[in-house]
Amino acid sequence: MSNPFFKKSNLKINNILSLLNKRKLKVNYNVNDIQELEAASKNDISFLHSRKYLKLIKQTKSKIIITNKKFINLIPKKIKTIEVDNVLVAVAKITSLFYPDALNDNFDFEVSCADKLKIKGVKFGKNVFLGRNVKIGKNCSIGHNSIIESNVRIGNHCNIGSNVIIKNCIVGSNTNILDGAIIGKKGFGFFPHKVKNIRYPHIGAVIIGKNVEIGCNNTIDRGSLSNTVIGNNTFLDNQVHIAHNVKIGKNCIVAGQVGFAGSSSIGDKVFIGGQAGISGHIKIGNNVQIGGGSGVIKNIPDNSKVMGYPAKSIKNFLKENK
Amino acid sequence: MSNPFFKKSNLKINNILSLLNKRKLKVNYNVNDIQELEAASKNDISFLHSRKYLKLIKQTKSKIIITNKKFINLIPKKIKTIEVDNVLVAVAKITSLFYPDALNDNFDFEVSCADKLKIKGVKFGKNVFLGRNVKIGKNCSIGHNSIIESNVRIGNHCNIGSNVIIKNCIVGSNTNILDGAIIGKKGFGFFPHKVKNIRYPHIGAVIIGKNVEIGCNNTIDRGSLSNTVIGNNTFLDNQVHIAHNVKIGKNCIVAGQVGFAGSSSIGDKVFIGGQAGISGHIKIGNNVQIGGGSGVIKNIPDNSKVMGYPAKSIKNFLKENK
Amino acid sequence: MSNPFFKKSNLKINNILSLLNKRKLKVNYNVNDIQELEAASKNDISFLHSRKYLKLIKQTKSKIIITNKKFINLIPKKIKTIEVDNVLVAVAKITSLFYPDALNDNFDFEVSCADKLKIKGVKFGKNVFLGRNVKIGKNCSIGHNSIIESNVRIGNHCNIGSNVIIKNCIVGSNTNILDGAIIGKKGFGFFPHKVKNIRYPHIGAVIIGKNVEIGCNNTIDRGSLSNTVIGNNTFLDNQVHIAHNVKIGKNCIVAGQVGFAGSSSIGDKVFIGGQAGISGHIKIGNNVQIGGGSGVIKNIPDNSKVMGYPAKSIKNFLKENK
Repeated sequence: MSNPFFKKSNLKINNILSLLNKRKLKVNYNVNDIQELEAASKNDISFLHSRKYLKLIKQTKSKIIITNKKFINLIPKKIKTIEVDNVLVAVAKITSLFYPDALNDNFDFEVSCADKLKIKGVKFGKNVFLGRNVKIGKNCSIGHNSIIESNVRIGNHCNIGSNVIIKNCIVGSNTNILDGAIIGKKGFGFFPHKVKNIRYPHIGAVIIGKNVEIGCNNTIDRGSLSNTVIGNNTFLDNQVHIAHNVKIGKNCIVAGQVGFAGSSSIGDKVFIGGQAGISGHIKIGNNVQIGGGSGVIKNIPDNSKVMGYPAKSIKNFLKENK
Repeated sequence: MSNPFFKKSNLKINNILSLLNKRKLKVNYNVNDIQELEAASKNDISFLHSRKYLKLIKQTKSKIIITNKKFINLIPKKIKTIEVDNVLVAVAKITSLFYPDALNDNFDFEVSCADKLKIKGVKFGKNVFLGRNVKIGKNCSIGHNSIIESNVRIGNHCNIGSNVIIKNCIVGSNTNILDGAIIGKKGFGFFPHKVKNIRYPHIGAVIIGKNVEIGCNNTIDRGSLSNTVIGNNTFLDNQVHIAHNVKIGKNCIVAGQVGFAGSSSIGDKVFIGGQAGISGHIKIGNNVQIGGGSGVIKNIPDNSKVMGYPAKSIKNFLKENK
Repeated sequence: MSNPFFKKSNLKINNILSLLNKRKLKVNYNVNDIQELEAASKNDISFLHSRKYLKLIKQTKSKIIITNKKFINLIPKKIKTIEVDNVLVAVAKITSLFYPDALNDNFDFEVSCADKLKIKGVKFGKNVFLGRNVKIGKNCSIGHNSIIESNVRIGNHCNIGSNVIIKNCIVGSNTNILDGAIIGKKGFGFFPHKVKNIRYPHIGAVIIGKNVEIGCNNTIDRGSLSNTVIGNNTFLDNQVHIAHNVKIGKNCIVAGQVGFAGSSSIGDKVFIGGQAGISGHIKIGNNVQIGGGSGVIKNIPDNSKVMGYPAKSIKNFLKENK
């Protein structure tokens, strides 16, 4: 997906090769963007760092792929390859080159007090601050001390509570975001380093559907390359934590203190009890019920009811624990 | 209990029947309020939606009960019945009719800066905002950026931290509420609907005793029909979540990140270790000790020590996990 | 360690004896401070309340020790003893006498708006408030509505988010503290009492290393007698709770919603998955990996990989739960 918010630099292949300390090409050409294999267009650079994504090599439109020694011979000859030691570090560096603003996640210095902006049809509390590139629909309210930093679009009939912080986020209509929620900061993605960890740029947004409710003190991080998504009519209770790249479907109900680790995807109509945790990079189907306190560490098929740590069939869990 | 905060409309039986698309009565009469079976007076309407409450039918003072096909023949003939498909949806609608303000949970637009209100005997931080119908006792302090929305009474010698949000709440004397706590917003109660969930009005308050400590970033929701209650001299650590209608007794100690699901009741002198979770609609006795990380999913009798997920006798838990 | 922040009174032995309702000595003399056995100098008073610390008696430099009936005969004769019923209550009282400000943890009334302080080299958001004895390094930024209360030192190149509250804290260079974090309030330490619990003074600070990241809505309490410590290059995700006196080493990675109970120590290069909980007063070695959702209730040696509740070898956990 094309990122609506971060400004993209125009790069040529030799900019990228020189960043990675590789020899430059004689014929220099434009590279449009860096994207995951599935999402890449023919002018984008992509990457392969895990066997899990090997099958996507056949269908990617990308013509240049960054990879390591392990995979380099598995890539079709019509695709150009750049071999590096650590694929994800190289991806982080290239992403920073394309999106120089996406690494800096400091507070938005250029906000203005809503009182002075004369925006019609929105009810503002005291000390509300708005950044650049903020669009707010009709008939909305934004509570006291809330900060809508740059790059936010809010639909019609939305109610934002007090002490809320939102950045890099698109919010659908009729959605309520309750007090103290923090939405759209960069995710907890970085490369460990023994002296100073290397922060990874996060160019994704948070995309929140319509008729959604986001509870008090929730933290929802924006995606790294893709977006973090909350589907229509999904309700989240207080103190829920949603890491980068998580996709939650429609009509879900998520109770208090639930946590989602990065890049997991949750289907539609999933009910999750309080304090449950969902591991990273797993897939939960549609119509799934997850009992309170569960720890889900593998994929869960559609129409399942699970509970426990690790989560198993709720029938078995209750039978074993009579 | 009579709700001290929300304004109640005066309704007649035909207002209610017409809301539920039922035929009006020839002789119209006043209905005072909507209440649970136990709490209802003779002029209140009440409801029965679960077998669990069937035994209360004999002792209720209510003369009109809303119920469904399943229970309608089990109700004594001297009580009038209104049959509906979904009892709780009907209750939500009627409650909204009685309490039109209790569904709207948006930020309090009518607050004023404490500096301008000249309240004696209270030490205010910077940018403190107070709503209507707020009473604060002697020798209190309220920290920076805190918002005391309408309908709050605070006792003497209380200290409220910074960035706190309180509404619909009564706080006893000598109580401390620490930074970032959010108290009194509506609970996570609603009826799932495939396009737009139906929010349930919450007309309860949060009642906090004296000598209580509420930790940083706690979230304590107000009750739906009844109140959420924290007893005298109970101490809550940071990041605790308390859902609607929960009743916690006196002299309890609740460690960090504990969560209480809706409508559970906790006795006196209960000690709960960090990250434990208490399911909804269960009863924990007096003098109970619950180990850290436990998931309590059924009633616990007085004087028990439990641990585990699901929680069992702590002796057995430790023996099985040597 | 000598506390850099709280003002210490000058006391004589008879002040202390009289506080504890003991007979005064004929020859009165100065007592420098109250300290734990290991940290005490020869002019400090110390205490013994648990068999666990008995072995430290031989190496302490303290010449006066408060203890109870159980231990009084185990203390070498060259050390003077003061016998009390409850050692920790006595320690709390004496600490309050030495550090009269350390019991009061109310908001800092004497802050000023950063706009008016003309501090060079720091980028301030709107409505930032700073207390007395705050030092901020070069090239830092502090976001909107953040409150840096008294007794804080921040290194160079640090970024503090919005809605952050910090007090009694030393922050190393190149450290980021994200939105909504609350750092340095007193810990959840007190003595239960049937009418009004007795709060314990917390004279420790929070010491945060360099290159650290503290996530959104984290709560990190200051120590009681010793400090709470976060080592260099350690990264904490959102909604992490760290209780008083916890020591976390260097290069650790702590995922979302993890909780640490009081006085535990964590080695270097420890990775902790989301929602894990670490009990109080335990020791985790270096190079340890703790799976998400784990409940760690005993010491973990170096180089271990554990998971489960209670946590055990990750191999066994996964084998048993196939």
